[in-house]
Amino acid sequence: MAEHGTEAKANIGVVGLAVMGSNLARNLASREGNTVAVYNRSPERTDLLMKEHGDVGFIASKTIEDFAASLSKPRTAIIMVQAGKGTDAVIEQLSGLFEEGDIIVDGGNANFHDTIRREHDLREKGLNFVGTGISGGEEGALKGPSIMPGGSAQAWETLGPILKSIAAVAEGEPCVTHVGTDGAGHFVKMIHNGIEYADMQLIAESYDLLRRIGGHEPAAIAGVFEEWNKGALESYLIEITAEVLRQVDAKTGKPLVDVIVDEAGSKGTGVWTVQNSVGLGVPVGGIAEAVFARAVSSKPDQRAAVQKVVTSRPEIQESGDGFEDDVQKALYASKIVAYAQGFDAIIAGAKEYGWNIDKGAIAKIWRGGCIIRAQFLNRIVDAYENDASIATLLEDEYFAKAIADGEEAWRRIVAKAALSGIPVPGFSSALAYYDSLASERLPASLIQGQRDFFGAHTYKRIDSDKTFHTLWSDDRTEVEQDPSTH
Amino acid sequence: MAEHGTEAKANIGVVGLAVMGSNLARNLASREGNTVAVYNRSPERTDLLMKEHGDVGFIASKTIEDFAASLSKPRTAIIMVQAGKGTDAVIEQLSGLFEEGDIIVDGGNANFHDTIRREHDLREKGLNFVGTGISGGEEGALKGPSIMPGGSAQAWETLGPILKSIAAVAEGEPCVTHVGTDGAGHFVKMIHNGIEYADMQLIAESYDLLRRIGGHEPAAIAGVFEEWNKGALESYLIEITAEVLRQVDAKTGKPLVDVIVDEAGSKGTGVWTVQNSVGLGVPVGGIAEAVFARAVSSKPDQRAAVQKVVTSRPEIQESGDGFEDDVQKALYASKIVAYAQGFDAIIAGAKEYGWNIDKGAIAKIWRGGCIIRAQFLNRIVDAYENDASIATLLEDEYFAKAIADGEEAWRRIVAKAALSGIPVPGFSSALAYYDSLASERLPASLIQGQRDFFGAHTYKRIDSDKTFHTLWSDDRTEVEQDPSTH
Repeated sequence: MAEHGTEAKANIGVVGLAVMGSNLARNLASREGNTVAVYNRSPERTDLLMKEHGDVGFIASKTIEDFAASLSKPRTAIIMVQAGKGTDAVIEQLSGLFEEGDIIVDGGNANFHDTIRREHDLREKGLNFVGTGISGGEEGALKGPSIMPGGSAQAWETLGPILKSIAAVAEGEPCVTHVGTDGAGHFVKMIHNGIEYADMQLIAESYDLLRRIGGHEPAAIAGVFEEWNKGALESYLIEITAEVLRQVDAKTGKPLVDVIVDEAGSKGTGVWTVQNSVGLGVPVGGIAEAVFARAVSSKPDQRAAVQKVVTSRPEIQESGDGFEDDVQKALYASKIVAYAQGFDAIIAGAKEYGWNIDKGAIAKIWRGGCIIRAQFLNRIVDAYENDASIATLLEDEYFAKAIADGEEAWRRIVAKAALSGIPVPGFSSALAYYDSLASERLPASLIQGQRDFFGAHTYKRIDSDKTFHTLWSDDRTEVEQDPSTH
Repeated sequence: MAEHGTEAKANIGVVGLAVMGSNLARNLASREGNTVAVYNRSPERTDLLMKEHGDVGFIASKTIEDFAASLSKPRTAIIMVQAGKGTDAVIEQLSGLFEEGDIIVDGGNANFHDTIRREHDLREKGLNFVGTGISGGEEGALKGPSIMPGGSAQAWETLGPILKSIAAVAEGEPCVTHVGTDGAGHFVKMIHNGIEYADMQLIAESYDLLRRIGGHEPAAIAGVFEEWNKGALESYLIEITAEVLRQVDAKTGKPLVDVIVDEAGSKGTGVWTVQNSVGLGVPVGGIAEAVFARAVSSKPDQRAAVQKVVTSRPEIQESGDGFEDDVQKALYASKIVAYAQGFDAIIAGAKEYGWNIDKGAIAKIWRGGCIIRAQFLNRIVDAYENDASIATLLEDEYFAKAIADGEEAWRRIVAKAALSGIPVPGFSSALAYYDSLASERLPASLIQGQRDFFGAHTYKRIDSDKTFHTLWSDDRTEVEQDPSTH
């Protein structure tokens, strides 16, 4: 079926034709000017794609050698196989067939540390390697995802126009940008997913409050989310939350959400976000508490054991006037904090790994195609356009006002949840983070005192640039420390 | 100065004679039956030790070859140098001089992944390698630390009696046990430090509440901690908190805690605890929020930026009757949660890395010598002696009752802090964790619905063992999923 020996050559190829790969290949083939080489290790998937959608724009190959030969120079192939060893195996094969200046793209959910390693190894062979985040799931791959490529500027020259042709479009702009070199794309995709965890957890807490304190049924709560989706919270996740809450189980007649087992699963990216952010010194409580909340939910033995010994639960507080509005404001304020923390992680990653990342451009490409797409991202674009050097998104005028407007409601909700026994780890962690930044003095000075007491870790004084130690187990005088000794 | 050529041989050696190493060597030399070989790369430190404390029990060497020659078989040497490359360099030297059956001990704060690697490499050469946690700081090293050795059972046979001779003693038992093979000791030391972070953060939050809501001055709060130290909270950290809060700065006459810069520093182990626990699927919010709280405190630019835009802070709530007692109960309940999470991480680590760890024995060796030493640990010993198979410490009768007794106070404190703008990330994260375990239904079912909507991640039903997917973008019927396809 391949048209070898003819002049017809593909300008882009896809290796790996499971749903994501097939959909991406179909998306590519549907765009003017693209001819798409496709290859899958087992030929059944290739045959299926060609049978159902192979009428135009594809060149299918049965071997990876034919696949490579069907690509015009510089050869450009997107790998869409399982992250990890699967990806390494395909890279190994392609790098034996590709030549200097050719481009291997990994479109899977790779760990950015692997991407940095692969880019380095292939660069030594004269090949371009581009790790790229692709968000939007199966539908996004087909109709237009948000795309976050790393790799070299040289590779971007060839790859950019192709990716622009298939990306989602938001406010007239394609949702793709050259994020930065080597692993920058997969790093930013990781943070995207971490923020997605936080966003979903905050929505789940809102639902729980509306249900257990507000006393509403899922269908009524769906209506609340639909209303919210007309305002500042407008987003894909709020929209689909309403859809899920409206869904009635055909078998029992109950709301589907009451039939689904309440143990949340997860894949690796939330965990990676926490591991890397904490390693970079960035507090990401909003994301961490979301990852932990899923983990707690998935410990049925611990949950059953505690519920067995708990003899009484606190009384649920009265919702009172304006409760739904309070929840909405608490959600919005907590969401602002979670995004501020996510962007802090991006800034810290860029600094650590030497990437020149345009923060506003990242907010822009998340406006379409991906799971966290939202009107809200325009506010982040604005904030960085106003002043790209802000120390945190929370100092931006719009966000500062949004939090000030919602602050009292936010506090009432966290207090009411605590008194009612409803877990709101996302809301309360975000509030504590905000209050930590806003407090003039923190009890961290006591921690420094403790550390100096038991470990001679020294401390700074507010009236000096030097470092000091108190002789705690001696006469408790204070001595100036030579910084070189500690 | 070395007594080579004589029959006098040392049964234990120490390489690296900075304060920790010197103190450990002195501790060893002070115990009946020990002769301690000592060596330091630069001879000044060796000379200093010998001059000040070298009257008995030491054999000093100027070269590492002489050091190795001064040890009786099986040669046993404890390395006390900077973790990382410093440790690797000494291991490299010693492994060239030591022979089959000899024992190299790393007493530094190594990452347990490094310890696993080193143990593996040295085992191939026929050498025993033991990574051991040593807690208690400089004073503990001298007078009796809590010691957490990993490594082989064979190495423990030789090393055990030596370590028992120098360990702290609690309730008549030496604070050392063979934790498990290879990296188990350094893993448990890492978790110890993570718990220490949580403990310190909870104390700092208590202080902040007593100060800002309670309206007390540091000296008065010192008195409160002294009272608490007579009850269930009795511990080294509560004790030294009172000491630090009583300290008056000689220069200004102010409480020292008001003169110390409120930016808490940290070394690696808190970060490692979070990274590894989240990777093992263990929610450790108490530890993570403590690590994050230190990180936030150390971002002066972000704090200043937010404080500049914040126009008003919430009014501090009235403390009301029994406020100090409420704080004490909130602290105790939160502390129970943090320790339960820490022990969960130990259990998960043991499972992942194949270690047979006696949880009660760990609680026992933490009762003396180390920073988190406390009466409280006896309750953990009791819990695991009652039933080592409990799913969480929170189901133990004593802890369940302690939380039930403190629960209302805990909720009042978290609510009051939220309304007053005082950050209590530790208290509120612990409460949310407890409420997650105690809630019969969690909104994780909504998260599963969302994941199925946007990513076809499937879900379980409460009335079936099978896996399902709703055709969200089709007719919204539910289909059973073949588990092999996802």
